[in-house]
Amino acid sequence: MKSKAVFFHAGCPVCVSAERSIAEALDRSRFDVEIVHLGLDKGRISDAERRGVKSVPALVTEAGVFHINFGAGLADLKK
Amino acid sequence: MKSKAVFFHAGCPVCVSAERSIAEALDRSRFDVEIVHLGLDKGRISDAERRGVKSVPALVTEAGVFHINFGAGLADLKK
Repeated sequence: MKSKAVFFHAGCPVCVSAERSIAEALDRSRFDVEIVHLGLDKGRISDAERRGVKSVPALVTEAGVFHINFGAGLADLKK
Repeated sequence: MKSKAVFFHAGCPVCVSAERSIAEALDRSRFDVEIVHLGLDKGRISDAERRGVKSVPALVTEAGVFHINFGAGLADLKK
């Protein structure tokens, strides 16, 4: 069975770079990867918070939250 | 042709978690993934520094350096 992985980003350059290099590099035969743009889909910010995301870009897998470099804090996306 | 990706870590819990979830999740049909344990292989610390690694765990791909959460600063590994 595939594992679920969610990549949260906000369209910033740091996010785009991480998306291209990490989210797109995951093995799709083993992972269902969902890409969520929190800048466009603000309704998912609370979902990201619940999962422990503090900043974007971040990858959430069954093992936990992985903050990858630093693009923007979640609080800034609510503005 | 496969892209090269190097995952630098130091054996800390944060590193091990990132290794299991990200380094091992990369698509091996597209990436040659090298795992480097800087705690055991201190000769590679200068290599990591040259590539822009500031802390571990970190993944270096052709697109640049991705610091994943924070396990330890590179300076601490030299002690």
